[in-house]
Amino acid sequence: MSRFLTPLAQSLPSSVPFVGPETQERRLGRPFAARLGANESLFGPSPKALAALAAAASQVWMYGDPENHDLKSAIAAHHGVTPAHVVVGEGIDGLLGYLARLTVTEGTAVVTSLGAYPTFNFHILGFGGALTRVPYRGNHEDPESLLEAAIRQRARLVYLANPDNPMGSHHPGSVIEDLIAQLPEDTLLVLDEAYVDLAPPETAARVAPDDPRVIRLRTFSKAHGMAGARVGYALAEPGLARAFDKVRNHFAVGRIVQAGALAALADTDHLHSVRARTLRARAQLGDIARAHGLEPLPSATNFVTLDCGRDGDYAHAVLAALTQHGIFVRMPGVAPLDRCIRVSLGDEKAMATFGDALGRALKSI
Amino acid sequence: MSRFLTPLAQSLPSSVPFVGPETQERRLGRPFAARLGANESLFGPSPKALAALAAAASQVWMYGDPENHDLKSAIAAHHGVTPAHVVVGEGIDGLLGYLARLTVTEGTAVVTSLGAYPTFNFHILGFGGALTRVPYRGNHEDPESLLEAAIRQRARLVYLANPDNPMGSHHPGSVIEDLIAQLPEDTLLVLDEAYVDLAPPETAARVAPDDPRVIRLRTFSKAHGMAGARVGYALAEPGLARAFDKVRNHFAVGRIVQAGALAALADTDHLHSVRARTLRARAQLGDIARAHGLEPLPSATNFVTLDCGRDGDYAHAVLAALTQHGIFVRMPGVAPLDRCIRVSLGDEKAMATFGDALGRALKSI
Repeated sequence: MSRFLTPLAQSLPSSVPFVGPETQERRLGRPFAARLGANESLFGPSPKALAALAAAASQVWMYGDPENHDLKSAIAAHHGVTPAHVVVGEGIDGLLGYLARLTVTEGTAVVTSLGAYPTFNFHILGFGGALTRVPYRGNHEDPESLLEAAIRQRARLVYLANPDNPMGSHHPGSVIEDLIAQLPEDTLLVLDEAYVDLAPPETAARVAPDDPRVIRLRTFSKAHGMAGARVGYALAEPGLARAFDKVRNHFAVGRIVQAGALAALADTDHLHSVRARTLRARAQLGDIARAHGLEPLPSATNFVTLDCGRDGDYAHAVLAALTQHGIFVRMPGVAPLDRCIRVSLGDEKAMATFGDALGRALKSI
Repeated sequence: MSRFLTPLAQSLPSSVPFVGPETQERRLGRPFAARLGANESLFGPSPKALAALAAAASQVWMYGDPENHDLKSAIAAHHGVTPAHVVVGEGIDGLLGYLARLTVTEGTAVVTSLGAYPTFNFHILGFGGALTRVPYRGNHEDPESLLEAAIRQRARLVYLANPDNPMGSHHPGSVIEDLIAQLPEDTLLVLDEAYVDLAPPETAARVAPDDPRVIRLRTFSKAHGMAGARVGYALAEPGLARAFDKVRNHFAVGRIVQAGALAALADTDHLHSVRARTLRARAQLGDIARAHGLEPLPSATNFVTLDCGRDGDYAHAVLAALTQHGIFVRMPGVAPLDRCIRVSLGDEKAMATFGDALGRALKSI
């Protein structure tokens, strides 16, 4: 280990939180037949976003606007807030990293759910935070337990994804609003709404733009189909939003990416089409799962989590067999969620490819 | 200010280190006639890189490889090292941020030059580091003073850019090699080689790949003409290189960007052509400057720093007048460097546009 590292850095593992499908393909020596593990949008981005990306490529010699002015303005208009309420960043992952840096030092108490988004934990632990993980209630993150733990631990942050990843479940927005109303004064709700564009109406909590108790995170990686561009945004009261300027990599959201996101946001027709196709794919994947004896959990996202009906070892075996049969999927990391595998939605052909491989994989176990 | 911030975060200013030209254009109410302030490459990227960017756009629904495998391998081959010696990141700025996080805590001593790259300072101060700034010697960062200060302050890091920004000067690689040989055991040299592709031969220091005393930083933003993609890399011994996995935003260098950088690196013909055009533009800009009574400093970069021959107030007035005449340029931030303005190189037409505006600007003061 390098002798120049801080004690905290020395204590951290050198890890990549997710093994990429490319790494698995290199190990397997062949490409996957279907890429259904990272909740990417197989429906792709808006053709208008694609055109904007291609057009902006010729401007790549110029740095992107470090203030992200046009994109921030469009996001603000979209949400009925001011640009001062918006932070643009390198995906939700990047924004979570900056938020952790701004709010967490060694020993800072932070609450999340056991089995929820690991990259949040990566950033909190990376700044020395002390994580408390409360169990899911069934297939849902549990606002009551999260609140209790936040009060008990005097937590600086409490994380909740609505809809949830990896289970695909959701709470009505009113449940989140109740949680916010009960938060202790010194606790900030980190509300990850990466999948909310694909959830039933009323899933997004109604939050006053200047409410200091919550920061909301959105992304262009899911419904907008631009995971490879890496751009997301946060909505927060201006005091917190402005604080990101203290630490962010100002030019990191590049020129091409800003142009693509701007076009994606404007193309509501494409978003509606993705929603419709997502609903159809959920039904199709549900049928496939049931036909093979797996239980599809209700989903408010662009993936469906399939309960394999036994323990984590069995689900691991299903996942490993699927990998061998050319399907990239992932699964929750901890019990009891790890009885499931998580399958991204796609068009009819992709779902059929999955179904075919699932049949062969289950037989091979 | 948000009540959730750490004491360190509370103490930091909410600032954008560089005001972007887009912000200035919004203030002016019109676009610049020439964009010569950010050391972007007006010669643009390789046409092969452009084609790769456009082709990759159709894959934007997929996250980029979080291990940057192909790009890392190509960079390693290019430099005759292994992929374990390479870190790919969100530009040199992003890599400096991660390096600061890995090595700096509150009070850690760090040495740089007074007037050198401000974003390095932004990151060091952002993690609570204690900066010592030593003066330039003439127009050069001064290895002797840097070394003395590093020894005196027991510095964890010492920063040196070769070639230098904002002065455009350079040291032969052997000078850097001598500095490395004399570094204290606990000091890491942060060697910023953003502009080295455009410098005379023998400017790049010869560093053994496993030398733990130095980390070198390179970028696709300058000679490769891809500032708007935001991708750079570091070369370091594997123990330090691997440490970046402890903290980095693993998916931040997106799929399109990785593809573009890979193609840019392979196109050595384009790089040679950019070098040749840079030499011609340096001569042309030098002639223009001298014709207007300004002194062009010798440059090993894609910009030329012009000594306006008086104090900082006068150079500020020149810069302000140039802005009014439609030219985006920048200038060093502190005396005595701030007697200069810094002008990026471009084709004959861009340089002529600058010359024309310079004449009018000087008359208007």
